[in-house]
Amino acid sequence: MVTALADNPVGRLVEDLILQGGVDTSHIRWVPYDGVGRAVRNGLNFTERGFGLRGAIGCSDRGYSAASQLHPDDIDWDQVFGAEGARWFHCGGIFAGLSETTADVAATAMAAARRHGTVISYDLNYRPSLWNAIGGKTRAEEVNRRLAPLADVMLGNEEDFTAALGFEVAGLGSAVAGLDTDMGGTSADLPELDPASFGRMMTVVNRTYPNLKLIATTLRLVRSATRNDWGAVCWTGGQLYQSRSYPDLEIMDRVGGGDSFASGLIYGLLMGFNVADALEYGAAHGALVMTTPGDTSMATAAEVAALVRRESARVRR
Amino acid sequence: MVTALADNPVGRLVEDLILQGGVDTSHIRWVPYDGVGRAVRNGLNFTERGFGLRGAIGCSDRGYSAASQLHPDDIDWDQVFGAEGARWFHCGGIFAGLSETTADVAATAMAAARRHGTVISYDLNYRPSLWNAIGGKTRAEEVNRRLAPLADVMLGNEEDFTAALGFEVAGLGSAVAGLDTDMGGTSADLPELDPASFGRMMTVVNRTYPNLKLIATTLRLVRSATRNDWGAVCWTGGQLYQSRSYPDLEIMDRVGGGDSFASGLIYGLLMGFNVADALEYGAAHGALVMTTPGDTSMATAAEVAALVRRESARVRR
Amino acid sequence: MVTALADNPVGRLVEDLILQGGVDTSHIRWVPYDGVGRAVRNGLNFTERGFGLRGAIGCSDRGYSAASQLHPDDIDWDQVFGAEGARWFHCGGIFAGLSETTADVAATAMAAARRHGTVISYDLNYRPSLWNAIGGKTRAEEVNRRLAPLADVMLGNEEDFTAALGFEVAGLGSAVAGLDTDMGGTSADLPELDPASFGRMMTVVNRTYPNLKLIATTLRLVRSATRNDWGAVCWTGGQLYQSRSYPDLEIMDRVGGGDSFASGLIYGLLMGFNVADALEYGAAHGALVMTTPGDTSMATAAEVAALVRRESARVRR
Amino acid sequence: MVTALADNPVGRLVEDLILQGGVDTSHIRWVPYDGVGRAVRNGLNFTERGFGLRGAIGCSDRGYSAASQLHPDDIDWDQVFGAEGARWFHCGGIFAGLSETTADVAATAMAAARRHGTVISYDLNYRPSLWNAIGGKTRAEEVNRRLAPLADVMLGNEEDFTAALGFEVAGLGSAVAGLDTDMGGTSADLPELDPASFGRMMTVVNRTYPNLKLIATTLRLVRSATRNDWGAVCWTGGQLYQSRSYPDLEIMDRVGGGDSFASGLIYGLLMGFNVADALEYGAAHGALVMTTPGDTSMATAAEVAALVRRESARVRR
Amino acid sequence: MVTALADNPVGRLVEDLILQGGVDTSHIRWVPYDGVGRAVRNGLNFTERGFGLRGAIGCSDRGYSAASQLHPDDIDWDQVFGAEGARWFHCGGIFAGLSETTADVAATAMAAARRHGTVISYDLNYRPSLWNAIGGKTRAEEVNRRLAPLADVMLGNEEDFTAALGFEVAGLGSAVAGLDTDMGGTSADLPELDPASFGRMMTVVNRTYPNLKLIATTLRLVRSATRNDWGAVCWTGGQLYQSRSYPDLEIMDRVGGGDSFASGLIYGLLMGFNVADALEYGAAHGALVMTTPGDTSMATAAEVAALVRRESARVRR
Amino acid sequence: MVTALADNPVGRLVEDLILQGGVDTSHIRWVPYDGVGRAVRNGLNFTERGFGLRGAIGCSDRGYSAASQLHPDDIDWDQVFGAEGARWFHCGGIFAGLSETTADVAATAMAAARRHGTVISYDLNYRPSLWNAIGGKTRAEEVNRRLAPLADVMLGNEEDFTAALGFEVAGLGSAVAGLDTDMGGTSADLPELDPASFGRMMTVVNRTYPNLKLIATTLRLVRSATRNDWGAVCWTGGQLYQSRSYPDLEIMDRVGGGDSFASGLIYGLLMGFNVADALEYGAAHGALVMTTPGDTSMATAAEVAALVRRESARVRR
Repeated sequence: MVTALADNPVGRLVEDLILQGGVDTSHIRWVPYDGVGRAVRNGLNFTERGFGLRGAIGCSDRGYSAASQLHPDDIDWDQVFGAEGARWFHCGGIFAGLSETTADVAATAMAAARRHGTVISYDLNYRPSLWNAIGGKTRAEEVNRRLAPLADVMLGNEEDFTAALGFEVAGLGSAVAGLDTDMGGTSADLPELDPASFGRMMTVVNRTYPNLKLIATTLRLVRSATRNDWGAVCWTGGQLYQSRSYPDLEIMDRVGGGDSFASGLIYGLLMGFNVADALEYGAAHGALVMTTPGDTSMATAAEVAALVRRESARVRR
Repeated sequence: MVTALADNPVGRLVEDLILQGGVDTSHIRWVPYDGVGRAVRNGLNFTERGFGLRGAIGCSDRGYSAASQLHPDDIDWDQVFGAEGARWFHCGGIFAGLSETTADVAATAMAAARRHGTVISYDLNYRPSLWNAIGGKTRAEEVNRRLAPLADVMLGNEEDFTAALGFEVAGLGSAVAGLDTDMGGTSADLPELDPASFGRMMTVVNRTYPNLKLIATTLRLVRSATRNDWGAVCWTGGQLYQSRSYPDLEIMDRVGGGDSFASGLIYGLLMGFNVADALEYGAAHGALVMTTPGDTSMATAAEVAALVRRESARVRR
Repeated sequence: MVTALADNPVGRLVEDLILQGGVDTSHIRWVPYDGVGRAVRNGLNFTERGFGLRGAIGCSDRGYSAASQLHPDDIDWDQVFGAEGARWFHCGGIFAGLSETTADVAATAMAAARRHGTVISYDLNYRPSLWNAIGGKTRAEEVNRRLAPLADVMLGNEEDFTAALGFEVAGLGSAVAGLDTDMGGTSADLPELDPASFGRMMTVVNRTYPNLKLIATTLRLVRSATRNDWGAVCWTGGQLYQSRSYPDLEIMDRVGGGDSFASGLIYGLLMGFNVADALEYGAAHGALVMTTPGDTSMATAAEVAALVRRESARVRR
Repeated sequence: MVTALADNPVGRLVEDLILQGGVDTSHIRWVPYDGVGRAVRNGLNFTERGFGLRGAIGCSDRGYSAASQLHPDDIDWDQVFGAEGARWFHCGGIFAGLSETTADVAATAMAAARRHGTVISYDLNYRPSLWNAIGGKTRAEEVNRRLAPLADVMLGNEEDFTAALGFEVAGLGSAVAGLDTDMGGTSADLPELDPASFGRMMTVVNRTYPNLKLIATTLRLVRSATRNDWGAVCWTGGQLYQSRSYPDLEIMDRVGGGDSFASGLIYGLLMGFNVADALEYGAAHGALVMTTPGDTSMATAAEVAALVRRESARVRR
Repeated sequence: MVTALADNPVGRLVEDLILQGGVDTSHIRWVPYDGVGRAVRNGLNFTERGFGLRGAIGCSDRGYSAASQLHPDDIDWDQVFGAEGARWFHCGGIFAGLSETTADVAATAMAAARRHGTVISYDLNYRPSLWNAIGGKTRAEEVNRRLAPLADVMLGNEEDFTAALGFEVAGLGSAVAGLDTDMGGTSADLPELDPASFGRMMTVVNRTYPNLKLIATTLRLVRSATRNDWGAVCWTGGQLYQSRSYPDLEIMDRVGGGDSFASGLIYGLLMGFNVADALEYGAAHGALVMTTPGDTSMATAAEVAALVRRESARVRR
Repeated sequence: MVTALADNPVGRLVEDLILQGGVDTSHIRWVPYDGVGRAVRNGLNFTERGFGLRGAIGCSDRGYSAASQLHPDDIDWDQVFGAEGARWFHCGGIFAGLSETTADVAATAMAAARRHGTVISYDLNYRPSLWNAIGGKTRAEEVNRRLAPLADVMLGNEEDFTAALGFEVAGLGSAVAGLDTDMGGTSADLPELDPASFGRMMTVVNRTYPNLKLIATTLRLVRSATRNDWGAVCWTGGQLYQSRSYPDLEIMDRVGGGDSFASGLIYGLLMGFNVADALEYGAAHGALVMTTPGDTSMATAAEVAALVRRESARVRR
């Protein structure tokens, strides 16, 4: 993990949690704390779990975080991708929108990864409130259009493609309805995906960014905070793959679903699974993380694999 | 809030919780505690949440509570409704049945409210065990018949109207089946309401109590302790209104549903919403309170409004 | 309860919990602890509750438990069944498979119970990992075949009858599909039971073990860790009884379902209920225990009876 | 344990805790609950632990408890003391002051115990607030004077002897200063006991109640809620015994110190220890209970014995 | 309470806690939240309780808090001090050092209070890290020298007077050693105060700020995080008052000691107590708050009064 | 960390905690679990914190742990000490006494460390119950005498030297009284150490094991479970060093004091501190770990250093 943390008791608590996950902390940049959180802080995210028709609430408090104040020359990416040989680089719109400088950090990292042949994924993850302070939608489009040509894998839904990347394709609406993440509604099933329309959008995206080898997104229909329909879809090599669908998925704590989809998919691809299987790993991992408290995964690779094999939720003993 | 509490650590804890809700505590009468709970106590209510086919359990322990020992001349209602201008007075059968004196307190308050033009609501809320010690069903009928002519708004279901108010209307059964609150059953849907029969009952009630401008009740079908069908209905101006229905509502802790329906409805009417909208506020508020622990509402007005607008349970961040 | 515990703080905590249940502890054999758990221990069972598509996990850690080291002459069964007049003796395959000596303990106890006219039930409960260390499936078959002729009531599903008792009946598969406990699947309903096939299997079992007066098992279809279809079936006097079925039973903590079925059934038979009613008590008790945390029952007899009478999960207050 | 409880969920929770302690519950009288706590309740006692200079707080809420409504003929004492052969009967001023009838219950029990040769102890335990509702100090004196002649062992401090039993002995003050329980102060040591003066008081008490074979009390100097000086003293056969003194005893939760002193002393006497040893058991048990949460003892007999032997608080492993 | 909060779930939780304390929230300015904490936030303060020789840790995270962004014209102080008649205004160096604008807010408020005859107190509370970002010690001196002439009551220790107010009096060291708050050390007693030297310092301070009618500070000697010597001192009318000393005060959670001293002192003065008594209320309130978790007081006025009367920490029941 | 764990959910939880501490897990040998804990288990240690005169309790349950079943050829020590260059190897009597094979594992490791010039420390840590099952004191002496010649640094108190290593030196008693760890008592101070006598014992030990360059032990006087006198002493180069003494150290949870002493001392020596300073680091680290829950250290190096510098327990903020 390459990031920065303010060196105070909160940051050291985060370090504990990162270590617990078995993640390498040697590339965390520890920034001296100013004692009050004016020069630098650690970002916080308060969440309240939803239940039934009461939706979850998130309150992001990440202004002036150490990560947001990273500068392009703070990290020796050649060390990361070259000497240490990192095989995959994952980044996204939340990091890029943290401050005026983080887009440059992302661009520098992606260019370095490309030099070393490291695979690059980017999650558009468009959050309007994040971008408001640094130029809004216009800035988001500008940043994402600058970074998109540097990625191999793009994660993002229709809203991301239009709002965060600026695509405005006539007749796209119906085609990509099925790609909305976290879509509220009362209809009985996951929206039908029109492969032809989706293919047309992919053609347009592909024309602009021929570098994108794979585009993926989750599908979520929010029946209630406790029950969602869930699934995922990806497009690669001109072909559309759809994961097993999880109707009426029981949710304990929804946070982390999207990130765990991404990590499951990347795991599958790194392990050399075929695309269809990797997509199933992503969807299954995202589903499992929503059955445990918190936004980081508590599922083992074996548990994800069992779910991909459609093993039931029988007791294991 | 106009009530009495025994001045001991339990009462002071209750005061904390009342303050936390932003409720004015200046009309709480603090009664000196006798050190053992023989002369006066604070009422307690133990509850165990239900789960699935295990229903919730309530154990009321409110004998000799300070509230039950209020006397009609303990409170200066002209101050409350006149000088301070309280706009709405809400009371009900649980308070009136607490002791031999509380019905007089309620009657005195309602008469004073009427003098000052304050709107009055009364929730019949018939609980047989409560009345047993002071005369049973006969006493309940007598008290409720004395108080009903003083109210503007009546909350109560069919059981309340027959058992607590003494109505015995031929052929009423089928008409009001849909009005049962907390009705167990295995049928697939909320019971159908026969508007004609219900109208006949309302005609009878109206003939006896022409003062009642609005009558309302919740509809609840208990599929399991964790899943209820939920809704509400009200009658006013000769017309019947039915709220949005909430099939398969997921329940965390059912206590407080009825009271939160009442407060949501009253809020809507006080805000000047039309009856249909006020009814939706009541049903939505009652639904939300059952998704949080405890019997007092943790929902904001904005959250209730969002549910009335049928916004989904998507994460808000 | 007749068992052995190591006399250390863990064992004394278990004693507390046994006492809390109102169980007689006078036949617990307290074995001196060696201070390290090499000579003797108390068995532990770690469990993680499941949620939705994440199944529950159990981790049994019961090697060298005091119970596993019981010897046939450690207990004065004539005292238990004779002088003290215990009316029912329940035992099973988990105890019998604990070590090389426990099968002898079980056999000795069952023989003594038989001498005193005490009713004997045996739960096959086949767990392969348990038997692996002492001879595997071969040993399990040998032990169960030795104990089966000593029982009056047998609890076990189809897997138990084939794997743990060695029955290999042609064409049995379809007949007993409905008897699988904890069966994962996605079908919409509890599997249909073919009474004719099941009757044929019972005929075969009966021919081998004419002593078995009643055979029973639970039926469980695992839709998710949080929702199971549930029911039970028993065969006696050449006739098949099926309990009320509990579709979509909401599960808080699944552990203890099978044991609570057994205890509910035994309670019903001890109370002199007819077989159909006793079976309903078993199914209802098993269902209730899964709505509370932990594997021991928190349900009262009155609560079980109410569920048997199909009372709804309305609040009781 | 001979008492009465209201048969509601609170009473059944109390039953669980009594069972957990290994206490026989067969003489608990279960009184039907009225659903509201007006006719009968279960007594409650709220406590807040003290810390440092913030003293503990107790809030007793036991009006109309089932125990307070016991009548002399509710219990078959001949069964308890005769057929079942209870060896010791313990009772006290808190029970006797619960209501108008409990003194009669105590008198009846003590008379029966006397008939059967059962040893009787009585803890004066004078709490003014308790007696206020039924006649105050006058009633307390009357009741205690009626019961004192029936006891063999009396527990009580100087305040109890004067206020609750009505002794007014000239010059007693200085003699019994050392007998005050729970005495606040800032002096450096446990108050000195003047054996001559104390002997004179005992002579007076003995002249009035020659039946009292042993009188005992705890000594407590409250340096802070977290540190007390602690000890105990008893008089028997014309001789005064003083326990080991526990200066600067560290307190986690002070409730239960007096009752655990009584039970430790009674245990010692029942075991046939000499008076000096039994007194040490009482003082040590009282000390240990104040190191654990709650007012019931979590100490084993072996732990009490080790403390009596002055073993240190080294880790045992 | 006059302040500003960001209108997000964290701010609304703070509102709950303020309401619970019975504090008027009508002068809280609710600032719209930007969704990420870049434009405005709610200040946070993480604390870890100390124990024994492990000191407590505080981590302040209050950059860009809504309070720090208040501007002088945000509040209608004439309404607060005039129409509503607030009797006392308390403020201090932590607020004044929050940002470039808060000193102006404080000055404006103090001037307005002065116009309306409201008593004004100011707690110097010098925290170097707070001032670092806006000019350091130089800025602190400048701000405090600007505000000191506007106050009636000054709270501050020797370090505050020298570092935060710029006094450099020859020979002052020995005189004010006794005024150090939170002073670590191993000496056996609270440092001796040299009244003559202290008087000389007060003469100097008084010459510069003749407006200061009363100066007060706490005295704390940190023996361990769990045991402090504690007391307080104040100077007024040319006379020095010293509170009762609390040697070896047992500490549960030290945060809030200084603020509770201030509020106890102000309470005493507002109640019209003489200075010596008001000082005792301050010291006692500060002592009590350190026996409960958190930094806000849980002590009632009656509990503070009892401690002032030197009542012991006996149980109250 | 070089050890073995059974690969079940308990072992994986332990892995989480090891990772959280930043410890390299690559040399943990994961042993397949047998499902019941008969062939292999994970060791457990139950602890109950002491309070005041109630001592802490430990209940070790480590029979058949994966670590106890390690064999000498299970680990490639040349890889650990050679290729990976571990600088220090720490081991002790608890590991060596786990089973018949672990002494061989220890001997193999120590010999390998010696070959690669790695410093070796050994903590005698004699626990009689551990050795009972494999030959008792005789076996302990034999094992420790075999391993002592392989160590550079020895941790152990007088009891360890006599009981676990078999030294029986005339007149040693008085000399080593000061070396008792965890010594209960009521004396006012840490026992005086007679340097001459201690020197004589060291001379004897040195004559037998000239390889031991440093011998160290903690000093603990148990005033109560909550207050200990604490310190440490070491002998090296013919000279005796004694750490700062910590009288009346406040204890939250005593477990881990000895191990944290060892790790603090080793840290100091590895950092190149002189012996006196390294000893202070050991004593301070041991003291700090007893102020936090659990047996693993939560103290940072900076916190230990501050304590060594005798900084007080003032709040840090």
